[in-house]
Amino acid sequence: MAEDNRNFPQGFESYVANAGIKDDTDDFSIVVSTVPSISVGVFTQSRFAGPSVLISKERSSKGLLRGVVTTSKNANVATGAKGTEDALKITEIAGAISRINPEDLAIASTGVIGRNLPMDRIEGLLNAGRPSSNIRKSNPADFHSVAKAMMTTDTVEKIATSTGRNLDGAEFSVTGIAKGVGMIEPNMATMLAYFFTDAAIEHQYLSEIFKRVIARTLNCVSIDGDTSTSDTSLVFANGLAGQVEPGALEQELEAVALALTKAIARDGEGATKLLEVTVDCARDYDQAKKVAKLIVNSPLVKAAVNGADPNWGRVAMAIGKAEDEKDITPETTTIRFGNIETYPAVIDDADLARLSSMMQDDHVLIHVSLGTGNSGATVWGCDLSDGYVRINADYTT
Amino acid sequence: MAEDNRNFPQGFESYVANAGIKDDTDDFSIVVSTVPSISVGVFTQSRFAGPSVLISKERSSKGLLRGVVTTSKNANVATGAKGTEDALKITEIAGAISRINPEDLAIASTGVIGRNLPMDRIEGLLNAGRPSSNIRKSNPADFHSVAKAMMTTDTVEKIATSTGRNLDGAEFSVTGIAKGVGMIEPNMATMLAYFFTDAAIEHQYLSEIFKRVIARTLNCVSIDGDTSTSDTSLVFANGLAGQVEPGALEQELEAVALALTKAIARDGEGATKLLEVTVDCARDYDQAKKVAKLIVNSPLVKAAVNGADPNWGRVAMAIGKAEDEKDITPETTTIRFGNIETYPAVIDDADLARLSSMMQDDHVLIHVSLGTGNSGATVWGCDLSDGYVRINADYTT
Repeated sequence: MAEDNRNFPQGFESYVANAGIKDDTDDFSIVVSTVPSISVGVFTQSRFAGPSVLISKERSSKGLLRGVVTTSKNANVATGAKGTEDALKITEIAGAISRINPEDLAIASTGVIGRNLPMDRIEGLLNAGRPSSNIRKSNPADFHSVAKAMMTTDTVEKIATSTGRNLDGAEFSVTGIAKGVGMIEPNMATMLAYFFTDAAIEHQYLSEIFKRVIARTLNCVSIDGDTSTSDTSLVFANGLAGQVEPGALEQELEAVALALTKAIARDGEGATKLLEVTVDCARDYDQAKKVAKLIVNSPLVKAAVNGADPNWGRVAMAIGKAEDEKDITPETTTIRFGNIETYPAVIDDADLARLSSMMQDDHVLIHVSLGTGNSGATVWGCDLSDGYVRINADYTT
Repeated sequence: MAEDNRNFPQGFESYVANAGIKDDTDDFSIVVSTVPSISVGVFTQSRFAGPSVLISKERSSKGLLRGVVTTSKNANVATGAKGTEDALKITEIAGAISRINPEDLAIASTGVIGRNLPMDRIEGLLNAGRPSSNIRKSNPADFHSVAKAMMTTDTVEKIATSTGRNLDGAEFSVTGIAKGVGMIEPNMATMLAYFFTDAAIEHQYLSEIFKRVIARTLNCVSIDGDTSTSDTSLVFANGLAGQVEPGALEQELEAVALALTKAIARDGEGATKLLEVTVDCARDYDQAKKVAKLIVNSPLVKAAVNGADPNWGRVAMAIGKAEDEKDITPETTTIRFGNIETYPAVIDDADLARLSSMMQDDHVLIHVSLGTGNSGATVWGCDLSDGYVRINADYTT
């Protein structure tokens, strides 16, 4: 896993600017492939999905997108017909800047819900039809600046790169960038997360690989159980590095997606710890993931992790919430924190002290075996701190 | 709605004591009918339900319980075979104290999960088979002290009484007591909530009435979306006040249960505000309740309410989480806070300031119309404060 610019995939360029959407930090970015590329997208299932999601979803269906324009600090959601007009207009502006047909660009937006975008300012990015001077173009793409321009309450930009070998033994590369710290409970989609590769691969393979990888990585992260209206994940493959084995690409894509997943969990709003929950010996993958999500999303478990309170009984409570999973019983269940078994083992005060001490680490591992079968799943989240409350009690004010 | 002792139902007596389960506050109580009574119980659906729940559920099936013994400060959950033995032993001790057949007593326990009860101390409540001198007996029952002895992190005892008229025009009474401030997301059951009435009614009617009332009241409260392993709700009717119309009893029972519901929401861990969410114009009751619960349980909505941040877009987000409710669309949805419409109305900065000011009240009303039908539901919850985090980060330490 390298994050070195030298390993970025070939044939992508970027445009980054401050459009003045909320303040004077970067809030506008475009990444495009300089040559034709294929693409796959997955999107939020929210019933209140914003116009950016709806437009991208429709354009993505052809599998031939060349890039994505992203605005941050305002999600342009619950903004009615004006919101749709504005999103379309932004893809036109981005098309003029990058000289790509707007129909070949996805759009994603993130930030506050329910406010119209300041379109007069965004339109200032074009000056008599030409890009204004404050747009920073970069070829090869400056993925760090793009990742930074997507941030809202994120404290760090999230970027990861991995390289593999194509059929001829030459190097190909996958770079992923993501944003997301709150309103994170992806469901068949993610926060904003884009992947760029110069591998050549057939569209059908890319689509299957991407959906599998997202299911095992970004769809396994939860910050607060609130599903965004703007979740968008896209992969672009421009083929410049030659034909690859699908398995080789899947491996590198998963490495990148997993790194982004952990970065998102660790940077969760107010988070002080990465919480990793593995459930195994489950009937099937769905049961394992369901129980793992119940644990990682329980505010009582998360608060205990925050305070390093060895209150492991709350994990039992969270498992118990799987009310429809009638094969789960206390009699076959085992609960461990790291290497300390807390149930059914009878633990004493010395064990509790050891557990509390272990929970002070910034990476807490909870491991549950259900005893209902042979499947497993791992999910990632974070603790619940007063920082989360403060960030979200005063978000717009 | 009176909470005056003079209106308590006839024919119930109480026993309250400190058994030393955790500290020197009252942690042990019994309420029994002095004459035979009928009963109905509803219980947690948790897969990790504790032995107290399992024992009470089985005994409750006959519909003839005379009372309930409650221990607080320790839930006796995830405690294995020893936990079951201990719970049975406590009903025997309670039977000896109240001179009721233990088989006619329900048992409920609340507090930390995963610790064995200090049975040596609880056994100290009997002295050579006779009640020890620190047990305070009261006839008529001292419901205030019983409600107080059930408390864990509750800051106030929760009690309500309502009176109606029987078929002869004479008075009957319903008193309810409850505890619960965290791990509150009842599902076909509640935290601990008991109802006592001297109304005479057939068991079949009582059962139907009780389940309807609980569904509309205590099953509509959420503090944190975490479902307790100990939820238990019981009603006892001893008939001393004569035969009543089922409708008259339902009305008084609902008034009491609703008062307890609001008291629980208002006393939610760390809560500074009561949050009331009404969803109407829904396809059916289930859709309305599902959407209302998504709103009242959203940590982002709850944090915004805490900070009086007029970030109404998070309500749109929470509605959007009803992913399977394909008939819900932004186009037919209306969102209001109190009397301020925030969607689809276009609101300006003055409206936002008015909204923020309204949200500083200690009772915040959110009203959503889905436009999918004619049904509605109301649920209650509270804001998410740093107080919730602090209480639960340090619960056992």
